[in-house]
Amino acid sequence: MSAARILISEVGLRDGLQSIATVMPTPAKLAWIAAEAAAGVREIEVGSFVPPKLLPQLADTRELVRFARTIAGLTVAALVPNLRGAQAAVEAGAHKITLPLSVSETHSLRNLRRDHAQVLEEARSIAAFLRTLPAERRPHFEGSLSTVFGCTLEGAIPEGQIARLAEALMAAGCDEIGLADTTGYADPAAVRRVIRLVRAAAGAGAVSGIHLHNTRGLGLANALAAIEEGITTLDSSLGGLGGCPFAPGASGNIVTEDLCFMLAAMGLETGVDLPALLKVREIVAAALPDEELYGFTPLAGLPLGFPGAVAGGRASRR
Amino acid sequence: MSAARILISEVGLRDGLQSIATVMPTPAKLAWIAAEAAAGVREIEVGSFVPPKLLPQLADTRELVRFARTIAGLTVAALVPNLRGAQAAVEAGAHKITLPLSVSETHSLRNLRRDHAQVLEEARSIAAFLRTLPAERRPHFEGSLSTVFGCTLEGAIPEGQIARLAEALMAAGCDEIGLADTTGYADPAAVRRVIRLVRAAAGAGAVSGIHLHNTRGLGLANALAAIEEGITTLDSSLGGLGGCPFAPGASGNIVTEDLCFMLAAMGLETGVDLPALLKVREIVAAALPDEELYGFTPLAGLPLGFPGAVAGGRASRR
Repeated sequence: MSAARILISEVGLRDGLQSIATVMPTPAKLAWIAAEAAAGVREIEVGSFVPPKLLPQLADTRELVRFARTIAGLTVAALVPNLRGAQAAVEAGAHKITLPLSVSETHSLRNLRRDHAQVLEEARSIAAFLRTLPAERRPHFEGSLSTVFGCTLEGAIPEGQIARLAEALMAAGCDEIGLADTTGYADPAAVRRVIRLVRAAAGAGAVSGIHLHNTRGLGLANALAAIEEGITTLDSSLGGLGGCPFAPGASGNIVTEDLCFMLAAMGLETGVDLPALLKVREIVAAALPDEELYGFTPLAGLPLGFPGAVAGGRASRR
Repeated sequence: MSAARILISEVGLRDGLQSIATVMPTPAKLAWIAAEAAAGVREIEVGSFVPPKLLPQLADTRELVRFARTIAGLTVAALVPNLRGAQAAVEAGAHKITLPLSVSETHSLRNLRRDHAQVLEEARSIAAFLRTLPAERRPHFEGSLSTVFGCTLEGAIPEGQIARLAEALMAAGCDEIGLADTTGYADPAAVRRVIRLVRAAAGAGAVSGIHLHNTRGLGLANALAAIEEGITTLDSSLGGLGGCPFAPGASGNIVTEDLCFMLAAMGLETGVDLPALLKVREIVAAALPDEELYGFTPLAGLPLGFPGAVAGGRASRR
């Protein structure tokens, strides 16, 4: 494998925090963003422009975007459910916006209260709005295919439907298609298959990012398969924050710390300083003392001789 | 990837139980072996022929081998530290014996109280003993390169040293070389590199099995890389039993349940009935109420539509 440069997109502030009941105080979020950017993470999804009534945990997204924009070199991302959210994101200054489209229409109706045609119409409205903006204020527009590896309500989604929706999102004016394993159903073979399928439908350059969960423990194996397929942006969450709300003890997003350790060990460049990243976890743990954090590298520490590892070995058996 | 047949070698009764202080009662071990074999696992390492004074948790290994041999179709494996252990294993009727050789000489001296030359001499003695046996009583003889992905005492091990020791084990009379990530230091790129290195040194057919830990969360990604390199036997432990004695909360061996789910999802044949396997966990949990069990698939359940999954979906967000 070549020494490719992989972009870690931290989504804990959005996907992690929206999945827990506790509302993290804004100052703690600002400290988290600043520390993780300082550790070398170059993209952070800081929140979602949904009505605060729906997700009070993310009510300060506007403020977070404004702050994060002041950090040099950081790409500031936000989720938007509709045109109104996209307008708010642009007003705050987001560099990247992501509109989710659930390939499971049942899931789409249940979560966004919109069918596929309505979400695609929203994508067209957003794209039309973005075209009115000067280039320097125009964010990158990702359409994200959620539940693309299967849905807890519908099970597996027909490949033709996935391909059709990917094509439709690009036709609606998205710059890029994201793939999201919302349900933790993915496996390495499915990751390869879906990436190839969506590239064939939406264009070889249309897919660069993937959003994986570790619900069944396969998250990093899936990440490996994605990287080997040429994916260069990986969403992950510090401490796997958020867990799986329907399976106590099961992890949420793939864990930023373990992912960064894997990539560094493989010689893939992320720009992340691992010891500094491991310290960011302390900020999150202190601000959310009742939430479980996941990840094994923080517990086990870095291998002896690894850059930044604390010296001093421990004996172990076979 | 072809629909290859992968052999799961359950090592929880040996590597899991030797890592915890609690001694599992023999009847519980027998129930575990019987249930996991009934769930379709075709190889189980039931214990280790070390002096009971050193590992009282494994003092009943002889009895377990004798029992496990009565299960049709099951390969009964045991660890042996020396000739005396190999003789005891043969007497009990083991089908496969594994002699560990730590490629880190510091680790070898610390754990086996033997340097490389002494372990190789032991391998020669064992091979000579095995040659005296009639074919039907002669077990398969694996020499396992432990700490092959790095050592907590020495750090990375020079590739030339690994190659030399692999070659020496085959020359000593081993049938096969195993690779063991004793310390949880492996990453997918290292897995590929070491497999190729050892095959080049010891023969293309000399390496078919790998023993991985999940200490830093990379276990299944490493397993995926190994399978893609043509490895067909994977050690794993039910519930990741044993943990990492030096990192509380960090997992031990890769988790049999998550591994089997990954392989089944990828369409790789293991012969394991997943719902039946998940029930074996209850036996282990009941017998070891104070020990932490790992694995995410048991918590999250099988995906909707997956063979054997319980019907009924749960809603989830992106």
